[in-house]
Amino acid sequence: MNDASQTDPLVLFMPSGKRGRFPVGTTVLDAARELGVYVESVCGGRATCGRCQIEVQQGSFAKHKIVSSNDHISPVGAKEKRYAEVRTIPDGRRLSCSAQILGDLVIDVPQDTVVNAQVIRKSASTRLFTRDPAVQLCYVEVDEPDMHKPLGDLDRLNLMLEKDWGWENILVAQHLLPQVQGILRKGNWGVTAAIHRDLEGSRPNLIALWPGLHNEAYGIACDIGSTTIAMHLVSLLSGRVIASSGAPNPQIRFGEDLMSRVSYVMMNPDGREAMTKAVRQAINELTAKVCAEAGIDANDILDATFVANPIMHHLFLGIDPTELGQAPFALAVSGEVHTWSREIDLAINHGARVYLLPCIAGHVGADAAGATLSEGPHRQDKMMLMVDVGTNAEIVLGNQNRVVAASSPTGPAFEGAEISCGQRAAPGAIERVRIDPATLEPRFKVIGVDQWSDEPGFAEGADKVGITGICGSAIIEVVAEMYLSGIISTDGVVDGAMAERSPRVFANGRTFSYLLHDGAQKIIVTQNDVRAIQLAKAALYAGIKLLMEKLGIDHVDTIRFAGAFGSFIDPKYAMVLGLIPDCDLSEVKAVGNAAGDGALMCLLNRASRREIEDTVKRIEKIETALEPHFQQLFIDAMALPNKVDAFPQLSNVVTLPERKVLAEADGDGGGRRRRRNRE
Amino acid sequence: MNDASQTDPLVLFMPSGKRGRFPVGTTVLDAARELGVYVESVCGGRATCGRCQIEVQQGSFAKHKIVSSNDHISPVGAKEKRYAEVRTIPDGRRLSCSAQILGDLVIDVPQDTVVNAQVIRKSASTRLFTRDPAVQLCYVEVDEPDMHKPLGDLDRLNLMLEKDWGWENILVAQHLLPQVQGILRKGNWGVTAAIHRDLEGSRPNLIALWPGLHNEAYGIACDIGSTTIAMHLVSLLSGRVIASSGAPNPQIRFGEDLMSRVSYVMMNPDGREAMTKAVRQAINELTAKVCAEAGIDANDILDATFVANPIMHHLFLGIDPTELGQAPFALAVSGEVHTWSREIDLAINHGARVYLLPCIAGHVGADAAGATLSEGPHRQDKMMLMVDVGTNAEIVLGNQNRVVAASSPTGPAFEGAEISCGQRAAPGAIERVRIDPATLEPRFKVIGVDQWSDEPGFAEGADKVGITGICGSAIIEVVAEMYLSGIISTDGVVDGAMAERSPRVFANGRTFSYLLHDGAQKIIVTQNDVRAIQLAKAALYAGIKLLMEKLGIDHVDTIRFAGAFGSFIDPKYAMVLGLIPDCDLSEVKAVGNAAGDGALMCLLNRASRREIEDTVKRIEKIETALEPHFQQLFIDAMALPNKVDAFPQLSNVVTLPERKVLAEADGDGGGRRRRRNRE
Repeated sequence: MNDASQTDPLVLFMPSGKRGRFPVGTTVLDAARELGVYVESVCGGRATCGRCQIEVQQGSFAKHKIVSSNDHISPVGAKEKRYAEVRTIPDGRRLSCSAQILGDLVIDVPQDTVVNAQVIRKSASTRLFTRDPAVQLCYVEVDEPDMHKPLGDLDRLNLMLEKDWGWENILVAQHLLPQVQGILRKGNWGVTAAIHRDLEGSRPNLIALWPGLHNEAYGIACDIGSTTIAMHLVSLLSGRVIASSGAPNPQIRFGEDLMSRVSYVMMNPDGREAMTKAVRQAINELTAKVCAEAGIDANDILDATFVANPIMHHLFLGIDPTELGQAPFALAVSGEVHTWSREIDLAINHGARVYLLPCIAGHVGADAAGATLSEGPHRQDKMMLMVDVGTNAEIVLGNQNRVVAASSPTGPAFEGAEISCGQRAAPGAIERVRIDPATLEPRFKVIGVDQWSDEPGFAEGADKVGITGICGSAIIEVVAEMYLSGIISTDGVVDGAMAERSPRVFANGRTFSYLLHDGAQKIIVTQNDVRAIQLAKAALYAGIKLLMEKLGIDHVDTIRFAGAFGSFIDPKYAMVLGLIPDCDLSEVKAVGNAAGDGALMCLLNRASRREIEDTVKRIEKIETALEPHFQQLFIDAMALPNKVDAFPQLSNVVTLPERKVLAEADGDGGGRRRRRNRE
Repeated sequence: MNDASQTDPLVLFMPSGKRGRFPVGTTVLDAARELGVYVESVCGGRATCGRCQIEVQQGSFAKHKIVSSNDHISPVGAKEKRYAEVRTIPDGRRLSCSAQILGDLVIDVPQDTVVNAQVIRKSASTRLFTRDPAVQLCYVEVDEPDMHKPLGDLDRLNLMLEKDWGWENILVAQHLLPQVQGILRKGNWGVTAAIHRDLEGSRPNLIALWPGLHNEAYGIACDIGSTTIAMHLVSLLSGRVIASSGAPNPQIRFGEDLMSRVSYVMMNPDGREAMTKAVRQAINELTAKVCAEAGIDANDILDATFVANPIMHHLFLGIDPTELGQAPFALAVSGEVHTWSREIDLAINHGARVYLLPCIAGHVGADAAGATLSEGPHRQDKMMLMVDVGTNAEIVLGNQNRVVAASSPTGPAFEGAEISCGQRAAPGAIERVRIDPATLEPRFKVIGVDQWSDEPGFAEGADKVGITGICGSAIIEVVAEMYLSGIISTDGVVDGAMAERSPRVFANGRTFSYLLHDGAQKIIVTQNDVRAIQLAKAALYAGIKLLMEKLGIDHVDTIRFAGAFGSFIDPKYAMVLGLIPDCDLSEVKAVGNAAGDGALMCLLNRASRREIEDTVKRIEKIETALEPHFQQLFIDAMALPNKVDAFPQLSNVVTLPERKVLAEADGDGGGRRRRRNRE
């Protein structure tokens, strides 16, 4: 570029918009590299890997003042033809390492190789997500040994990696030293090296080596939840997610919720070690599963990113989480963690790198950081509220000027624990509920049965799966419906007077209960159940309110429900019950496993790592336990809903005939199913 | 310094000569750091570690234009007094972290804490060897956890390491993550961190952590020889060698010499693994031994440097050495190797770092590089020849302008192998020999017996140990003495005519032999023995001559014999036999384990690592097998000595009565013993 003159052809790369002038004969790949446009290439311009495909736009582009035409690019040459014979190049595509610039050009870097729809969410500030993983494959042809220049085989390899790819001062993983000679000879001196460099300016690491051209490199992005471990398997070369799966966290056998696992560690000398082993083994099994699904070798996994809540994060790294179980809730490490697969017994490539996103605070983990990165409150003007509900609700609130975060002790009620008929979301669990305000008769949907309970064919389906309990999302709905139909009052008391209107409301000791289903197993909602939900929602709402007060705002522009809970509940019911503040309903979105999406972004783009590291440092952490006002907010939030006039968006929901509006919200369930699939 | 004015006190540090002006009240330690004068400090200026001692010179120093006097330095303060009460400060010493500059000063940085006599050899260009190890201990006091600022314990530690010690972007060894909380609490938030940074500009590594002030850090410098493993245990804080020891290389059971070990690997599928395991285990046992000797914990060893010949180097790293057994003798890796103790199963601190010096060529290993670093041909004007004799002779020749290196196939004769009565240097082995040229009667010395064989008391001593063979050094002497007494001719034939003068010369098949000792075991020097030595010395001399021709020189200024062989033989006999070219005898020195000294330098000074890395790249490698002229040089060198007139320095030795001169050379053996101790 230094010697480019104003008469040289002008080349514009889309969609980045980067442009520059290059001498006639420059390859498109070289031009892209000089401009910092990310175009993958493994073979280093030998037209054998096919990773560097681009498209040439034809015609006049007045806006860019560039005119592209067919004779502005070199014709398909011998190497490209040979590649096209062996593999397929889609119509209109060229290999940028072979195509030379002959005149002004507009070049499309195809979206399918640069961005991944799953990673990108449209947000106020839509960003182009450029792929720039920490691991890169580099094919080189190494000089054969020469007695006159007795440089080691590895040293000659490193020389070539510097010459062809610009990697200087390479650090070599110890385990490769014994392998390098065999690999070089097996590849007849042509080998593919995997280079890892996360931080710009740090020394590149040679982490893996294959004979010949190795055209596959994968990564895993993993969210270690207390209940479920979710994993994406991603091609680092295309950026595509090629398999996704989940598995239960086997630590459940040591304790259902987080605090009982911490207790287990405190009570059992080998507890920490057993739980670390269990979660690593589950991750290895899940890795094997996604690899089998995609038909790839786990040895081709070269990078892994993880998000987790603080206790899962610590147990995964082998750190005793005891300190997190008691004030001052000190994290052993809050910043990002870089390590190696072999240091934590992951069954992927022995040289693979591992990156854990930073934790925000003792109760706001790397999972919340991942969700923050994915949803990007810090990237937009709009005031965004992001909620991830589990045993604790992790709450992040803010915009590009300021972001605050807290954890609120909702307890496990939202997950169906502490609820008399509560159970996990599994076949047989009631997942949706409607109550007729006139008759107080319910109708509901059961996981594993296609029909609603009042539709033909339901009984046959229900006979097969059995009706066994209520899952988390339905708990919210049934309490909201009980409130909307007048069975419970604003202060959450099951109204005994209703027993006169329907036998479904009945005295149950000193309080009243509601009989949701009268079958082989009675499904009942008790006064205690309502109280548990009331307490949980009050804790969540108080936490949100506290953060809004910190920012001096009384209104949020947009709300994101992250996590499984958010995917299953209907945002409208969340608002009816007063879990979340008033907001335009179209701006309330369930975003599925946003934490995992954040891990995915960090896997595919090093800049995302820097972004979340910087953001986490900037986030103001609020500890609800230290805020005297929190208690008052909590008490205020016990009412159902908190204060109706605080929810103008809900006024139509509450005052109009409920069935109609809420049925619309439910639709055919497609929205929910789509969200679920996206996880 | 930026705001220092010309009226501020001037401070001169000796022996480095660095100087600068500092405001009144600056501590001497701060001044030293600002000037880049290396003064150790673990406690970071708390006057508790005692590592930063200096001396204030008193009086007028016209040369430096600085006048030091008692009132130019602050009086001993409370902290220093407290330290002196608990420990001892030598008279005249001050703690530089407490002593403040009040006026012009000359400061002595005591030599005992800066240099180690064992490391420094006087050479043409005498250098001050400044200690600057890759590992540094840093005591910090970490903020306690704060719920308002939920930074992790490790993150607060890192913050303090940046604030107090300037370490930025610290990388933390994975195994410390589970330990950091316990250590911080055990130390009541005061901890000592070990930071490793080898290359300037690379990220510092946190490799070890202790509660409270930890005032000990050690390193090992190790030379892995084919026969013997030698190790120094060094304090990284004082630079002192606190224990040294050696152990046989247990790989001997797989093959006596290098090539037979390579054969073993080629023949046995598990051979490489078995030999790697054996040498690592021997190193671990030797480490345990030096630790026990010095009374230290192996966990306090934080850095390790290694030299070895190429085959030992590869086997130690777990690399198959097969390629080194055949042309083109390709090293798997020739450059320096950085790794971690745990990657190669060393039983020292789990976070300890390991550094291997680079190899020069396929037959000129990291041991030759270590010797080069130690003796420094590349640092001086004089033309230096450095020879390390083993199965191959590694030869380095050059000065600061140009250095060449080669390996010459001497075979194992110099080590006593292939010699009919040859044996290792062990009790019972003949180690010195003199032959009376008049009577042809020998006298000799035996290892384990104090007297010479013609002295009273010898018989009793010899009865105890037995006389079992001839060791390497004596082989040289006996052949030289046989030549000097006329028993063998210039072309190396045992002269049968001599049998008439003495029964010690006798027909033995078709050739003649010399009976050195007639005891329970006859010790005989055969014609074949003489031939073996002749071939070995011809190979060595031809290699040297080849390098001299490459440099276009016919004379060397100074000669160094490195290694055990060099320590045991008398340089004069080496010259009589024509092993080495003519040189002023006072410039022929045995330097003991110079390779190990090079490892030691790299352990104590990072600049030494850069120096040898750069030097090895600069050294021109000559492969004798590829030099057509080598064969001719070899044939020319078969004569004894090569050509007498080529050795003017020897003319008096050869022409004067031999006994007298050579007895002088031998002296009381103290010189030799001193050299042996130094290994």
